[in-house]
Amino acid sequence: MTGLSGESALTRFSVNQMTVKQLTLPELTEACVRLGVPAVGLWREPVRAYGVEAAARLVQDAGLTVTTLCRGGFLTATEPARRAQALADNRAAIDEAAALRTDTLVMVCGGLPEDSRDLCAARERIADALAELAPYAAERGVRLAIEPLHPMFAADRCVVSTLDQALELAERFPADQVGVVVDTYHIWWDDRAPAAVARAADRIFSFQLADWTTPLPAGVLNGRGQLGDGAIDLRAWRERVDAAGYAGPAEVELFNDGLWARDGVEVLAEVIDRYVRHVR
Amino acid sequence: MTGLSGESALTRFSVNQMTVKQLTLPELTEACVRLGVPAVGLWREPVRAYGVEAAARLVQDAGLTVTTLCRGGFLTATEPARRAQALADNRAAIDEAAALRTDTLVMVCGGLPEDSRDLCAARERIADALAELAPYAAERGVRLAIEPLHPMFAADRCVVSTLDQALELAERFPADQVGVVVDTYHIWWDDRAPAAVARAADRIFSFQLADWTTPLPAGVLNGRGQLGDGAIDLRAWRERVDAAGYAGPAEVELFNDGLWARDGVEVLAEVIDRYVRHVR
Repeated sequence: MTGLSGESALTRFSVNQMTVKQLTLPELTEACVRLGVPAVGLWREPVRAYGVEAAARLVQDAGLTVTTLCRGGFLTATEPARRAQALADNRAAIDEAAALRTDTLVMVCGGLPEDSRDLCAARERIADALAELAPYAAERGVRLAIEPLHPMFAADRCVVSTLDQALELAERFPADQVGVVVDTYHIWWDDRAPAAVARAADRIFSFQLADWTTPLPAGVLNGRGQLGDGAIDLRAWRERVDAAGYAGPAEVELFNDGLWARDGVEVLAEVIDRYVRHVR
Repeated sequence: MTGLSGESALTRFSVNQMTVKQLTLPELTEACVRLGVPAVGLWREPVRAYGVEAAARLVQDAGLTVTTLCRGGFLTATEPARRAQALADNRAAIDEAAALRTDTLVMVCGGLPEDSRDLCAARERIADALAELAPYAAERGVRLAIEPLHPMFAADRCVVSTLDQALELAERFPADQVGVVVDTYHIWWDDRAPAAVARAADRIFSFQLADWTTPLPAGVLNGRGQLGDGAIDLRAWRERVDAAGYAGPAEVELFNDGLWARDGVEVLAEVIDRYVRHVR
């Protein structure tokens, strides 16, 4: 490991659990403590498998901050029963976030319902759902962070494709209740995103990092590149969110089959090294 | 085949050669005549393999219009020798377009050069190259049509990712020399694209069609869906380009391993049927 200049370099570093999903929650916690990582982003499924309260105690006892819980969302269903189910699931996610003592629930808002081709209507259903969920979350000290996903996910995962679209949704709500995730992987290509970052200001609830590498794998979900391996000027984006007034964590979230096949602690050490060299 | 209501339904239909690349140029020409297709978009590689002059005679003798030649571009190199090579290759493409009697050369502008992460600088190099190429093309009766490619191609294929970006480049030149391609596959997700279509007006040099289907295949290049199989409201986009004053051909361009594995004439008949049902 080169370039790692002590604890101060990692003050704002967070590792998302998915980056090293081969590690169990205790293994992840131990590795973080050992490598000086102060914070983690968690995912609902492994947290629930471990037990929400037990997970909360584990990370708290290790002195780790939980920067985000991933994820709520999928709010685009038209069918009333599915819609009610989605809202109930999001309330459960908010409860879990509160139990984990994180203030931020990441929202991946959902793709087009089957047989629909209407992106605008889907976005309006997201707004309607946020209106129901934001007060519930606020009462529990949880903020909803809308994550625009890369346009290649617009059909099947998230109809919110740009930071501008995410802000147009968020700005309908109080700034301490609904904000956005700035994730380099999803917005790096967008020439309007730098201005949107500046406009987002205190609505930047989370800053996530991954690099863009090609060729993309089939299904395109698990090809997020290790920091420094790809096309994104990561430091420039970090400087942009800083200039916008963001003082929170930089959470590295990589979905990458190649990284998942390796030793998780080794991958975490590599991520830290890359973060220090390419982000800070 | 259902819903095909005679020649008038196909008046503005064009099939891009890549859609049925399993057909030789004579097979394609014969199939077009037999099925009432009045126009084709051609690709440089198969045309050169057949012979440019011979290809020009073949399609002309069959009474077919050549709606586009694909493709010029790849203008983002920094190295002087590579840049000179790219310009020479584009002049050759312009000459071939003129020989084929098409007025439109589609430009796929190129991705990031190796070791560069500067999208803006790459776009400026495209503008510089267009300034050299546009007069050369105009003298030969050829217009340059900048094709924004889906943002998933920004790194390795085309740094022009939105119709707005394509227009910002095109508008630096005379409206009869440099314009844009509106391709549903690349812009369907973009909430700003409808306004950009209206603004593009007589700079819409080509309207291309493909549907968005998931999951995307590895490499994401050859997953363009058959019309009607995917998430795009194709008719709405056709109505938008019409409302913007576009009266030219609707060229169906599918890159699809599944379609390429089938009988080409059968695929062409299916495309025609889908076009009549989902576009017209």
